[in-house]
Amino acid sequence: MARSTTISMAVIRRLPRYYRFLEELMKKGVTRVSSNELATLLGLTASQIRQDLNCFGGFGQQGYGYLVEQLHEEIGKILGLNHMLDAILVGAGNLGRAVANHLDFGKRGFRLSAVFDHAPELIGKTVRDLPIRSMDELDVFCRTQHPRLAVLCIPKEAAADIVSHLQSLGIQAFWNFSHYDITLEDAIVENVHLGDSLMTLSYRMKHPNE
Amino acid sequence: MARSTTISMAVIRRLPRYYRFLEELMKKGVTRVSSNELATLLGLTASQIRQDLNCFGGFGQQGYGYLVEQLHEEIGKILGLNHMLDAILVGAGNLGRAVANHLDFGKRGFRLSAVFDHAPELIGKTVRDLPIRSMDELDVFCRTQHPRLAVLCIPKEAAADIVSHLQSLGIQAFWNFSHYDITLEDAIVENVHLGDSLMTLSYRMKHPNE
Repeated sequence: MARSTTISMAVIRRLPRYYRFLEELMKKGVTRVSSNELATLLGLTASQIRQDLNCFGGFGQQGYGYLVEQLHEEIGKILGLNHMLDAILVGAGNLGRAVANHLDFGKRGFRLSAVFDHAPELIGKTVRDLPIRSMDELDVFCRTQHPRLAVLCIPKEAAADIVSHLQSLGIQAFWNFSHYDITLEDAIVENVHLGDSLMTLSYRMKHPNE
Repeated sequence: MARSTTISMAVIRRLPRYYRFLEELMKKGVTRVSSNELATLLGLTASQIRQDLNCFGGFGQQGYGYLVEQLHEEIGKILGLNHMLDAILVGAGNLGRAVANHLDFGKRGFRLSAVFDHAPELIGKTVRDLPIRSMDELDVFCRTQHPRLAVLCIPKEAAADIVSHLQSLGIQAFWNFSHYDITLEDAIVENVHLGDSLMTLSYRMKHPNE
């Protein structure tokens, strides 16, 4: 598969949506889909879809469309979902437990391998069959098990210190739910700001004619 | 304040970040900030910041910068945070409760006014001091209290039916956490796909040199 070398983040952020919609089509027994049909489903234009997929070498045939299962599998490979990396959850409060329970990490390229919290009353309870460990165990765990991703569900005040400590322990990427922007040049970061999403809704509801 | 008429979603999505960073500066006692300083904080360029704020009439003075508190207040007004709309939470499972507890809706333009679930064992428990109500009460509540936003933390299978029912009850906007894309032309929707964010991380970690 030919592949262009620089792919924009905008294209990359659309890939998970393609992947999900193709999975839906597979469940419905659809085997072939045109770029026009995909476009209608996704609310994009057919030419944008063709352009996006062409970044990865293109998969469709003129006048024939895409084979749903094949395209789903190829996008999964591009997303790296067939190659599991170890992840840890730091912060097992309401949000941390909800994120861990809500999402199947294994379907998205990660193995959730340990959960940490500093609250004594949580230690020993379980999240997705994983025991919640004391933060005292974090260093040894990371040095022996080498997890690559940390999911951060901790208070804002604690975030900056924990992030640099986790980096020193070999964590390369952060999925950050704390109300704190991680801005690191030498790490991969997804900041999930739920509050920003809510404020965007506020704007859109209060300026309905734009 | 002069205001250009069409403002792109990209600009709108940056406003909450400006708002948060300005709040941080206020907490640190900073009263004035240049577009260069803001740019460094936010990881944007100074000219992009000036362009964004010019969409709303511009607030800074050449060579003087922005007054932090004033700009914070103005952006808050643009986001509509001073004008509360009623919101309901539908689905008080792990994720629903975590979202309600994690976020201060009042600081983001909404008043969380009721919580609904269909599970008998949850009815009567509380989330943020609100009793969890039976779904049987939903229609009467909406018809008498006229909430405008529904926060959906329900299983994918239930989402399509509930969305159209909520629309018929006058709900105008959806903050959707279910694994289902709401695509409605006559409603305002923010789909929060945590799984997509995780798959994006998978891509970025497995193609580190892009």
